[in-house]
Amino acid sequence: MINFPKPTVEQFFRTYAITNFAVSSDEKCLVFNANLNGKMNLWALDLPDTYPYLFAQRDESCDFIKFDPENRYVLAGFDKDGDENYQIYAIPSDGGLPQPVITGESSEKYFFSHLSADGKRIYYVTSEDNPSFLNTRVRNLENGEDTLLNEGEKSTTELATVSENEQACVYLQSFANTYVVGFVKVGEEIIYLTPDSQKTHVVGEPVFTDNETIYFVTDYDSDDMYLAKFDLTAKTFSKVFGVDGESIQSIGWDKENELFYLTAVKGVTDVLYRYDIANDSVENCLLPVDIIEQLHVAKSGTLYMLGRSATVPHNIYQSANGLEWKQLTNNRVLGLSQEDLVDPDIVSYTTFDGMEIEALLFKAKPENDNGYTIFWPHGGPQSAERKMFRSMFQCFTNRGYTIFAPNFRGSTGYGSAFTKLVEQDWGEGPRLDCVAGIEWLFEKGITERDKLFLVGGSYGGYMALLLHGRHPDYFKAVIDVFGPSDLFTFVNSVPPHWKPIMERWLGDPERDRKRFITDSPVTYLDGMVKPMLVIQGAKDPRVVKEESDQIVAKLQEKGRDVEYLVLEDEGHGFSKKENEIKVYSMMLDFLEKHQA
Amino acid sequence: MINFPKPTVEQFFRTYAITNFAVSSDEKCLVFNANLNGKMNLWALDLPDTYPYLFAQRDESCDFIKFDPENRYVLAGFDKDGDENYQIYAIPSDGGLPQPVITGESSEKYFFSHLSADGKRIYYVTSEDNPSFLNTRVRNLENGEDTLLNEGEKSTTELATVSENEQACVYLQSFANTYVVGFVKVGEEIIYLTPDSQKTHVVGEPVFTDNETIYFVTDYDSDDMYLAKFDLTAKTFSKVFGVDGESIQSIGWDKENELFYLTAVKGVTDVLYRYDIANDSVENCLLPVDIIEQLHVAKSGTLYMLGRSATVPHNIYQSANGLEWKQLTNNRVLGLSQEDLVDPDIVSYTTFDGMEIEALLFKAKPENDNGYTIFWPHGGPQSAERKMFRSMFQCFTNRGYTIFAPNFRGSTGYGSAFTKLVEQDWGEGPRLDCVAGIEWLFEKGITERDKLFLVGGSYGGYMALLLHGRHPDYFKAVIDVFGPSDLFTFVNSVPPHWKPIMERWLGDPERDRKRFITDSPVTYLDGMVKPMLVIQGAKDPRVVKEESDQIVAKLQEKGRDVEYLVLEDEGHGFSKKENEIKVYSMMLDFLEKHQA
Repeated sequence: MINFPKPTVEQFFRTYAITNFAVSSDEKCLVFNANLNGKMNLWALDLPDTYPYLFAQRDESCDFIKFDPENRYVLAGFDKDGDENYQIYAIPSDGGLPQPVITGESSEKYFFSHLSADGKRIYYVTSEDNPSFLNTRVRNLENGEDTLLNEGEKSTTELATVSENEQACVYLQSFANTYVVGFVKVGEEIIYLTPDSQKTHVVGEPVFTDNETIYFVTDYDSDDMYLAKFDLTAKTFSKVFGVDGESIQSIGWDKENELFYLTAVKGVTDVLYRYDIANDSVENCLLPVDIIEQLHVAKSGTLYMLGRSATVPHNIYQSANGLEWKQLTNNRVLGLSQEDLVDPDIVSYTTFDGMEIEALLFKAKPENDNGYTIFWPHGGPQSAERKMFRSMFQCFTNRGYTIFAPNFRGSTGYGSAFTKLVEQDWGEGPRLDCVAGIEWLFEKGITERDKLFLVGGSYGGYMALLLHGRHPDYFKAVIDVFGPSDLFTFVNSVPPHWKPIMERWLGDPERDRKRFITDSPVTYLDGMVKPMLVIQGAKDPRVVKEESDQIVAKLQEKGRDVEYLVLEDEGHGFSKKENEIKVYSMMLDFLEKHQA
Repeated sequence: MINFPKPTVEQFFRTYAITNFAVSSDEKCLVFNANLNGKMNLWALDLPDTYPYLFAQRDESCDFIKFDPENRYVLAGFDKDGDENYQIYAIPSDGGLPQPVITGESSEKYFFSHLSADGKRIYYVTSEDNPSFLNTRVRNLENGEDTLLNEGEKSTTELATVSENEQACVYLQSFANTYVVGFVKVGEEIIYLTPDSQKTHVVGEPVFTDNETIYFVTDYDSDDMYLAKFDLTAKTFSKVFGVDGESIQSIGWDKENELFYLTAVKGVTDVLYRYDIANDSVENCLLPVDIIEQLHVAKSGTLYMLGRSATVPHNIYQSANGLEWKQLTNNRVLGLSQEDLVDPDIVSYTTFDGMEIEALLFKAKPENDNGYTIFWPHGGPQSAERKMFRSMFQCFTNRGYTIFAPNFRGSTGYGSAFTKLVEQDWGEGPRLDCVAGIEWLFEKGITERDKLFLVGGSYGGYMALLLHGRHPDYFKAVIDVFGPSDLFTFVNSVPPHWKPIMERWLGDPERDRKRFITDSPVTYLDGMVKPMLVIQGAKDPRVVKEESDQIVAKLQEKGRDVEYLVLEDEGHGFSKKENEIKVYSMMLDFLEKHQA
């Protein structure tokens, strides 16, 4: 009777991101950060009611939300235009405008670590006086005293948690994404959580179950992350629970029932376990989504979870038992059902050296298919493309593009050894995995040889530049979103507190000079002959604007076809709805223009 | 422990407007129009869940929402940048982007009237071919046929409702706001709903309870609006139910239980009655708010109501019985409780000719009081200032201003005779009521003689200009928001379908030439010596931009202190959040600047 046209591009960008949340101790209020009104702001639900109201307006990204246990205020961290210099603010318990609590020069960072049980002392980590290694301090809110607890040395050192009696602090010291040691500091005494801190391994998510017992996740002597325990009295380390081929990522502690809720990464999806300490028994939970972004276990034992799937945008769910979930929020794609969206196939292919590489293949539905494929190397690189909703992927597949996203070597979710393969090898192994993936697409007849685009952001932008420079014949056109273009300049321009990990992660520009040249996209300017679109946030603290400026300038000097979009008020990502729509519309126009 | 400052201006403008809503026949979906994400868009609740999701994105004002009875689509009317040329669109039942259904040139209007019970025929009223008097047409959605049903003659004529068998149509013909006759058209036969259509009276809200019976509200032979009935078979008119001193405004028909829910205006608040036809019995309902903006009675008998109070912004409520209400939405002032807001006193004073004038007095709380008063003549003029939330009022009182808003002669809510007093007397009686109100403020010691500001919009802007020109000594400074400045130009610039009522409402520029001169603000340019701020929407179809342009230009010629703000994408009001904040911040700055 009334005919409606196919969904348009704009509809896909009318979802919003929910990045994090917190629940008050009485579970009467849930506060979450989302760009529901176009910019990132805090919204609240007065549970069990689920109608959200604006809780705090600042129009900036938020890195944490923490309720005062006695509900006198809510703490939250905000940066400025995506610069990631988060500082600590307080909001009245009924909502309002955030007021500075622990803040300083706009170039300094103040990361929240812990709030004392009485809500009177804030433990935090700051770049102030120690930009690379960071200091840990505690602020007494009653008398304003601010005490230095730990001075970071040798490498970035952050306070991760504090015992309830505030006698013991657990610190994490990062030498690489794959080498993070944990130690407890009691007074001036330092005790490592694992038997040998010199071995390369990761410690994360420490939780005090009482003043003497710390549970945490680690891959110490293993390829997978598992649950471990450290007894502070006996000073003993023990493995508690692990699953072969899965990496336990986070721990939710249900003190009342003495249960742990453990989230584990299994390739491109997540798994949730309920682990009963007393009985050493484990139960598989059921999940309403594929990816868990945040899990909170309330005192009552009720679970709150932020998650998404490939076809479900960020939503917050509640569960009494980890089996049945109630969806609290209702974030969805305007006018589209889940069936209208593309759920990716999980595929794998054999790469140049015989290893198996897993990939996600988002096939355009036949009625939409335009015959073109987008090759998407993910960012990180020690991260992965997983079954998580991206407006961009759903919009582009709806427009007819098939998207192929391989988890090349260096990706997470396939064991620690695999993740380490990208370290000091940014441009060779992972690149050849990408090349093998491209050839696989052709072999399988998924893509025709002259119908491939290349799009990537961050490390994926770097890979897009590198693939463009070294294998231009594969691609019709290339989009680089804030990708490093020159490893020599990039290694020096990252935030100071990233510098301690650069040596293991990327390498040393003097020692590895030859490899830096080989692996820098700028080395291959001559090869970059295809049309290119470069997108960059002016405030990006991770991949600074100069990385894009220089490659654009050099290519323009050579008369190449390069378009360049700089977003003045964004960092390493697009948090503002209008910017997001602008970027992706421009990307679509660019792809369409270069189909011919 | 953490000290929070007093609420700031911005917080008050972080509420949003909810203008209208609709409920699906199965009551599983409620769609409402609100500027929740900064611009006006449709949001939906999947009841009983109350988490809203974006239902339709168009970023424009919406004049109606109507569910297809069989849930295949939702109809809605949208204009462009506030130009009030509403046209009819359809949205898929799962939401999406509105698609044109009954639309035309951007200068034409297509007002929705009625949807047939099978959802296949849309009855509508259009300016097409008949811009002043309007035509009524029906569009058959199945075959696309579009049939002329009624050609408006003599005055603006709109289809108000259609009987279920679609044999009888009720039209309302307006000669003035206080003279609207109703007639039924059956074939070509025309039957008036009241005994004498030549008498001045109003007919409104016709409802068919069966194909032969029409209920409606009227003030025929009364000073108050009451519930009346017309029997189409017997052709008899009868009064059914009324309350002395109250005006019944709307009728909700609960067919299942044969009940009417009647909303009545009683001065500055509303009342809700449940009227049982069979027993001719009436019951007072309880209301969660002071003002009812929209009432919907579902087939099940459940009530849905959009309302607000002075200290409660727009919210939607649900009730099974009209006694207990569940709040479905949670629109609130960021970080403020109801106690932080100002509930106005209802006061009254004796005006120049001995009549009593009721007024709302929003007293700044002592801790905020800055000693200044804002005199606010409301718009309309056949409207009233009532106990309804306005961000502006709450923000300005929080900043320390006391606000005084008199319901001068011509206001609604005090009987038909009182409302008529402004007709053909825009500038004398109402102005003297304002003057008496000002003197009363001084007498009562509420305001000091040199601490009065004058702010008004629409007719209130006209009154602000006129009071400024004729009584400049009262005011420190004046703000005019889209007020007519010259009655000669104004009378010719209103929308064509308003023209038929202008003669009775305002007068005839030739016949009433002398009065038009006396009552036009431009006549008193010499008197307008106080600083002035003029605000105007460029697309305003009611008070066109030239009304503000000319007075600003003339005063600037004379070297007066006039600031002028034109909003390019707004009409007669501010629907876009960023514009609203801009306007009110500018107004506050202006007032602050001129306090000294």
